[in-house]
Amino acid sequence: MRDSTEGAPPVLPNPPKRLLMGPGPSEVDPAVLQALALPPLGHLDPALLALMAELQARLRQVFRTQNRVTLAVSGTGTAGLEAALQNTVAPGDRVLVGVIGYFGERLCAVAGRLGGQVVRVDGEWGRPLDPARLVDAIRAARPQVVALVHAETSTGVLQPLDGIGAAVREVDGLLVLDTVTSLGGHPVEVDAWGVDACYSGSQKCLGAPAGLAPFTIGERALARLRARPAPPATFYLAADLLAGYWDDHQYHHTISAPLVYALLAALRQIAAEGLEQRWARHQLQHQAFRAGCEALGLTFLPEETSSLWPLNAIQIPSGIDDLRGRTALRDYHGIEIGGGMGPLKGKIWRVGLMGYGARQEFVLDLLGALELLLATHAHPVPAGAGVAAAMAVYTAAATHSVPG
Amino acid sequence: MRDSTEGAPPVLPNPPKRLLMGPGPSEVDPAVLQALALPPLGHLDPALLALMAELQARLRQVFRTQNRVTLAVSGTGTAGLEAALQNTVAPGDRVLVGVIGYFGERLCAVAGRLGGQVVRVDGEWGRPLDPARLVDAIRAARPQVVALVHAETSTGVLQPLDGIGAAVREVDGLLVLDTVTSLGGHPVEVDAWGVDACYSGSQKCLGAPAGLAPFTIGERALARLRARPAPPATFYLAADLLAGYWDDHQYHHTISAPLVYALLAALRQIAAEGLEQRWARHQLQHQAFRAGCEALGLTFLPEETSSLWPLNAIQIPSGIDDLRGRTALRDYHGIEIGGGMGPLKGKIWRVGLMGYGARQEFVLDLLGALELLLATHAHPVPAGAGVAAAMAVYTAAATHSVPG
Repeated sequence: MRDSTEGAPPVLPNPPKRLLMGPGPSEVDPAVLQALALPPLGHLDPALLALMAELQARLRQVFRTQNRVTLAVSGTGTAGLEAALQNTVAPGDRVLVGVIGYFGERLCAVAGRLGGQVVRVDGEWGRPLDPARLVDAIRAARPQVVALVHAETSTGVLQPLDGIGAAVREVDGLLVLDTVTSLGGHPVEVDAWGVDACYSGSQKCLGAPAGLAPFTIGERALARLRARPAPPATFYLAADLLAGYWDDHQYHHTISAPLVYALLAALRQIAAEGLEQRWARHQLQHQAFRAGCEALGLTFLPEETSSLWPLNAIQIPSGIDDLRGRTALRDYHGIEIGGGMGPLKGKIWRVGLMGYGARQEFVLDLLGALELLLATHAHPVPAGAGVAAAMAVYTAAATHSVPG
Repeated sequence: MRDSTEGAPPVLPNPPKRLLMGPGPSEVDPAVLQALALPPLGHLDPALLALMAELQARLRQVFRTQNRVTLAVSGTGTAGLEAALQNTVAPGDRVLVGVIGYFGERLCAVAGRLGGQVVRVDGEWGRPLDPARLVDAIRAARPQVVALVHAETSTGVLQPLDGIGAAVREVDGLLVLDTVTSLGGHPVEVDAWGVDACYSGSQKCLGAPAGLAPFTIGERALARLRARPAPPATFYLAADLLAGYWDDHQYHHTISAPLVYALLAALRQIAAEGLEQRWARHQLQHQAFRAGCEALGLTFLPEETSSLWPLNAIQIPSGIDDLRGRTALRDYHGIEIGGGMGPLKGKIWRVGLMGYGARQEFVLDLLGALELLLATHAHPVPAGAGVAAAMAVYTAAATHSVPG
């Protein structure tokens, strides 16, 4: 007897190949992508549990934390955000949120949905908040939770955190930090900075496909969670239940083995490269890209001192329509970049140089494509100016570095 | 300049190949598995959005619904469960839950965390609830929400639903149905049965890897959601925001393109096979496996009239230790089956015949392995008795079917 599934027509989708240089997902190393197609394992198979334990240890290294409860939430970065707030914000808690972009707004929205009383500290989109101002606001509001975005993906701004962790402890609060666009691409120091809950996404600087959210939560936050009169309004994202699965192998949900394989492969690559070296690579690619853009007459939204390395926000030049420009890059060059969000929609483009995607050839490809786009929109520049400026940065870096 | 990621050591995990015959994840067709490694796309790429629209249309066919809001939640079946309750249960609502197994208990736990007042209708683990008893309970409690498990994965029991949808409407309630282990393997009729919110998992009878939760919610439930004084205690799983992404392409989260590809490939296979034919295939494989088990002297937990086809719960024979028996199947035969949960731990084994895994050769492999296990534990049976009994079922089915 033949099985009825045999002889069926081909079923594979046929997605076009893009060069992913938007705000994420970023390009994935072909080796990491192949990990997805390895034989799946059951969610309680000892062989999978061993890989998950390795993944936890490697996440602790990337987060720079000793937190026992360090794992990957089965969802995207937004699931990580929600997990961080569900496990720290009890109904009625004051939650102080720094808002300098779309993801600060999102923290406010989620904290509000969980019954938090949101205390906003607003700033200009495209500039960081002054940490001293945040410290003052924390001392004044004495919030139970302070939630900040370390790397504001919507504006390309890095938020400095000087003195924040100490101020949060001073008022006996918990510090939640969004590192979706910084983890693996910028220094992140969960323990040294006094961060109580931190989350990221697999598909940005870590270099894995989307679908998992690295997450860590410390003992202070867990003690407060245990002391609540009622559990949080979630079962899927409850830290104690997640820890019960990851650490004690109690069934909680059916984790996606392919996503575990791919994130683990990406984390092994990070260890092989070296975390500090990876940060330096992100910095170099950013500097080269910024130099190239400036040679093309393009302006960054943030000042260089507060620019993210993995996420480069550039002002759309006059006379170029946002969507038509991005469509041209996609259709003529196969390159995806991102548009602006909220008040910056139509005003900026967002270029991701993240993980595997933070590479010289991609930077040069995009600079060449941007030059063509500018030339066809009445912004002529000397031929090859962007690429040449970027190359000068690479050459200088190679000259200064000692061969290994 | 060489990129620092070049020349790095190999990073791929090396998972063993198992034959996944537990309660899920189930075996994935090699073609579907390959879909995972296709080039990823950005979450707002028109090419991905077109694939997502096709996925929605195919999910409507599988759920048998016209619901506009039919999509895949970016999480596992448990995320689907939580999405269904978050979007139907307002704090203070009475939630009537039928409990005849672990997943009924889980519905109670989640409903309680969301502030629902849980009204339990308990029954024996291994037997369905009498629908007439449920109707009486619904009329007595007049709950805002009734939540039932169609296919109780922990016991292998199919819950009949006669008259339930009408009774729920009679009291102006909403009906939530868990079809994690039935969708694609048993008849499920969301619209005809009056189901207001329904969820499943990608990794069972649908035949895709784990990581997405098919989800559908109807207009009655959405109207009630919109009328709430406060939004639900979730952003990640809020139905209106999910619909804004899937239908109106407003950014909400970064969906995992590989998981979309694989689920879409699996749904295309279902369409090629025919949904009714797929149900019949699951029924046939169950009947053959049950006949084989009975020839080996094994007993099913549920009666045949209420047995699930995709999930076969068999009593562990006397003298065989649960974990040692399953470990022997895994280590000597490479076959994974599941153990019992809660009060059935150590008492039953759970065998999944789901999706691609509902195949004659897998049934025969497992029956042969079980025969060996029994023979080495003082339960000798005539050699080949299980396989022969299963073959008799296949032969009878082939004789009765008309060649295509």
